[in-house]
Amino acid sequence: MGENGLPAVGIVGGTGREGAALALRLAQAGFEVIVGSRSEERAIAKAREYSSALRDAGLAPTLRGMTNEEMAGRVDMAFLTVPFQQAVASVRCLRFRSGATVVDASVPVLFQAGKPVFVEIEEGSVSELLQGAISSEVAVVGAFKTIPSKILGDLDVRLDCDVLVCGDSDQARALVMQTAARLPGLRPVDAGPLWQARTLEKMAFLAIGVNIRYQIKAARFCVVGL
Amino acid sequence: MGENGLPAVGIVGGTGREGAALALRLAQAGFEVIVGSRSEERAIAKAREYSSALRDAGLAPTLRGMTNEEMAGRVDMAFLTVPFQQAVASVRCLRFRSGATVVDASVPVLFQAGKPVFVEIEEGSVSELLQGAISSEVAVVGAFKTIPSKILGDLDVRLDCDVLVCGDSDQARALVMQTAARLPGLRPVDAGPLWQARTLEKMAFLAIGVNIRYQIKAARFCVVGL
Repeated sequence: MGENGLPAVGIVGGTGREGAALALRLAQAGFEVIVGSRSEERAIAKAREYSSALRDAGLAPTLRGMTNEEMAGRVDMAFLTVPFQQAVASVRCLRFRSGATVVDASVPVLFQAGKPVFVEIEEGSVSELLQGAISSEVAVVGAFKTIPSKILGDLDVRLDCDVLVCGDSDQARALVMQTAARLPGLRPVDAGPLWQARTLEKMAFLAIGVNIRYQIKAARFCVVGL
Repeated sequence: MGENGLPAVGIVGGTGREGAALALRLAQAGFEVIVGSRSEERAIAKAREYSSALRDAGLAPTLRGMTNEEMAGRVDMAFLTVPFQQAVASVRCLRFRSGATVVDASVPVLFQAGKPVFVEIEEGSVSELLQGAISSEVAVVGAFKTIPSKILGDLDVRLDCDVLVCGDSDQARALVMQTAARLPGLRPVDAGPLWQARTLEKMAFLAIGVNIRYQIKAARFCVVGL
């Protein structure tokens, strides 16, 4: 737990676009956020940059930067925002606390000659692949997959959508849903077992296609009737 | 085309719940609807039943019943609403007009001991399986998969959601989108190639899970930001 009673959160690959977006939104919502990176220097610089942006918006964020390794040993919940091809390698060399939750936001999409291509994962989804690759004492939760980082990182835009959360550990899923519920304009929806990451990853790819066809920027989803 | 200038539409398996729902909504929107069934007698009886329900609501619907075979030769667009295991067999023995569109609304979900189970289709989705099984002169479009028949068939309920439409024929996809746009409270969204039926079928299964977990009846989807 952080000093404010909220879970301590870290971002693996917190210097990338998706990582920056999550760091900003989480710090904005009052979480103590550790920005992780392979380079400590870069992590510290980015944490300062995000802090400064939030202070400009009149907030008093708590953001620190450190290596992914150091961060992993300190947080209750780590968001994984590296490119999907690096997800397993990134997580395998980290020692998370026992009982920690890894939130996998990755989507198996490549851009080839400017066109998005969905990469079928043998295990079904990146999240399932990850769960198979790391200690069973760490619960993988798939979430934030269907929310474009473009809009997630723009604090001036209201998200106004649902964050679909899946995972096999009820406790970890609930923790991520409680966390997401603190982000304004986001409604967490329990999407069930980790298997559903297959659905969420494909939905993210569908949204990318909708963006292209309709020339919009941030197609995302909402569950109607809930 | 029907006499009203709208495409002539038929429902393969129009006597089931999903078929009834589509027949009612389409006839309500002014389409001439042919209710298909293996049994002509049953088709005629159901068409009368739907007509009567719509006349009670003050409408003047055009609904007829005939065998699936007879219907197939007469319509521009046939909605397939049989259980997914019967989809290929149902369609294989029908002779559609050249250039006809088959709208596949099926979802590969079984209920085992009351629990929904997603059935992985080797071809990726029921819609892709169907396209592979029928003449290439007939375009398969996946649509209405994510809209629960429970709400689709209840004319008193506003649908208030999106209908995601996918298919490899631009013309057929456009036709289904134009058709869907005539149903009040439904917004068609171009979901891209037929491959995306994989996504839509999994989204339908996700919605079933959400219904169960939240004890609601008709979870469905809307694309935000469009």
